[in-house]
Amino acid sequence: MSVPAPVKWHDGRLTLLDQRLLPGRVAFEDQPDVASVARAIRDMRVRGAPAIGIAAAYGMVLAERAGADLEQSAEQLRATRPTAVNLAWAVDRMLRAHAACRDLLAEARAIHDEDRAMCEAIGRFGAPLIQPGANLLTHCNAGALAVSALGTATAPMYVAHRAGIPFHVYVDETRPVLQGARLTAWELAQAGIAHTLVCDSAAAHLMAENAVDLVIVGADRVTANGDTVNKIGTRALAIVADYHGVPFYVACPSSTFDADTASGRGVPIEERTSGEVTNPLPAPAGVRARNPAFDVTPASLVTAYITDMGILPTADGFLRACA
Amino acid sequence: MSVPAPVKWHDGRLTLLDQRLLPGRVAFEDQPDVASVARAIRDMRVRGAPAIGIAAAYGMVLAERAGADLEQSAEQLRATRPTAVNLAWAVDRMLRAHAACRDLLAEARAIHDEDRAMCEAIGRFGAPLIQPGANLLTHCNAGALAVSALGTATAPMYVAHRAGIPFHVYVDETRPVLQGARLTAWELAQAGIAHTLVCDSAAAHLMAENAVDLVIVGADRVTANGDTVNKIGTRALAIVADYHGVPFYVACPSSTFDADTASGRGVPIEERTSGEVTNPLPAPAGVRARNPAFDVTPASLVTAYITDMGILPTADGFLRACA
Repeated sequence: MSVPAPVKWHDGRLTLLDQRLLPGRVAFEDQPDVASVARAIRDMRVRGAPAIGIAAAYGMVLAERAGADLEQSAEQLRATRPTAVNLAWAVDRMLRAHAACRDLLAEARAIHDEDRAMCEAIGRFGAPLIQPGANLLTHCNAGALAVSALGTATAPMYVAHRAGIPFHVYVDETRPVLQGARLTAWELAQAGIAHTLVCDSAAAHLMAENAVDLVIVGADRVTANGDTVNKIGTRALAIVADYHGVPFYVACPSSTFDADTASGRGVPIEERTSGEVTNPLPAPAGVRARNPAFDVTPASLVTAYITDMGILPTADGFLRACA
Repeated sequence: MSVPAPVKWHDGRLTLLDQRLLPGRVAFEDQPDVASVARAIRDMRVRGAPAIGIAAAYGMVLAERAGADLEQSAEQLRATRPTAVNLAWAVDRMLRAHAACRDLLAEARAIHDEDRAMCEAIGRFGAPLIQPGANLLTHCNAGALAVSALGTATAPMYVAHRAGIPFHVYVDETRPVLQGARLTAWELAQAGIAHTLVCDSAAAHLMAENAVDLVIVGADRVTANGDTVNKIGTRALAIVADYHGVPFYVACPSSTFDADTASGRGVPIEERTSGEVTNPLPAPAGVRARNPAFDVTPASLVTAYITDMGILPTADGFLRACA
């Protein structure tokens, strides 16, 4: 597999892959300070809940080295994107490490290493769900580009592929930012995994044709009751999968679980600019667009959570682990 | 309302609006012969089930005037797009008129005039469904550009708007060809109807917010049992509307009803080129896409059919009218 790492710390420097330029260009950008990291998160140069958390953790290292106020830097990072929980989780963990006089670089590296290990575990637990000849469907990019190592939704795919299991993945293009078309299709091609790109709205037709055996998506936040906040379109996909009796799995590391929020109703849904919808289109000049970036999938529509602690049929397993 | 007519017969010449250029350019193209009309249908210069039927009817007039074989011309037109029933319906009606030695131009004009009248009737019957302050959602373009006069899904909107009822329409962009973004948003703007563009996958989120009171879509074919074949994405939208308890209406003229086909399983679903999905995107070079252009919405998910014969809760009313 030759997918470039989205976040790298090397020789005392933080480097981020600019994911906005993929698949056309693979370009890395040094991040001199925490303001630059915050900008990269807001502009979606770095995206994917876990990768954002890891980048923010290293951002806190940069802040400390520059002698910046750490509380203020934490606030600056947290304010960039409200929905994914990993960002606040990573920043808070860095603040606690600082309060305990622990080495911040070691803490950021621990977050990064734990993320890799969680992805490996998700892959190991999830791979047996992929039977030889299976057709999967995924939405957005919860892949190596979003996380580290194997990704989350893609981790079972990479592990099954390594084991020589033949299968095929339908990739939702994922409007408006096209993470599926630009990132997941590219990532799977790099890895040599068979895939076909489809428009987001085609999933119901594919399922009516019995062309989809299971859906695996990632998550930006799973709340205490199991509600899953993920890229816009995930809710529709889960409803449609339920209608057709297709299993719907959420792959997520423990860091995505938010025990402090009771349900999806308590999660702020980021609204991004109208321009993300209208600009690449031949839309009429001046047309107004709404652009909710995420939605909530009710726990009742999730078959199971593929986590680093195993396959959990409900969020209770998370709750017990966090208790 | 100043939406240009998609099909015009004037001074013995057939002129089609090239809808591929909208909203950037309003350009009309003379159609010298039936081959040119067939090409315009296949390339989607003219699109929308009723408009295709009307264009094909005039195409048969051109064939007769050129002394072409009418059976062959009919076959050439029918072969362009397999899913919408109006095309075959209009061509067959022209062949019957020819067999009965009726004037073909008069027959084509009758099809065109009847279509206008059916749209007016759909608008009159459907308008009372739009309460003051209502939020509607529509998919694709079943508007004046797809039909004639008031369109089908848009007809109740135009009639309610004329009557001074304030309401707002969410417009699905409708990937991959973007008929919603390019045509419906433009058409509603011309008519001064408030609207907001959204990505197709956002409907479930809007419904979860209680931001959608009813859905109205058009149809390319309604089969004897009420199954509705329409633009890809309609099936997902109907399933999602059902999940949220949002009424889902299909607006269609009698010419869209196909009493000879028992259910949606009997309707050929056109697969269009991969390039329609990948070309406008920054997708990886060589990526393969599937592009089913239509899907089937089960009759059980349709609240009612808004037709020129009234609001029919099931397809039985059509069947009785066709018996």
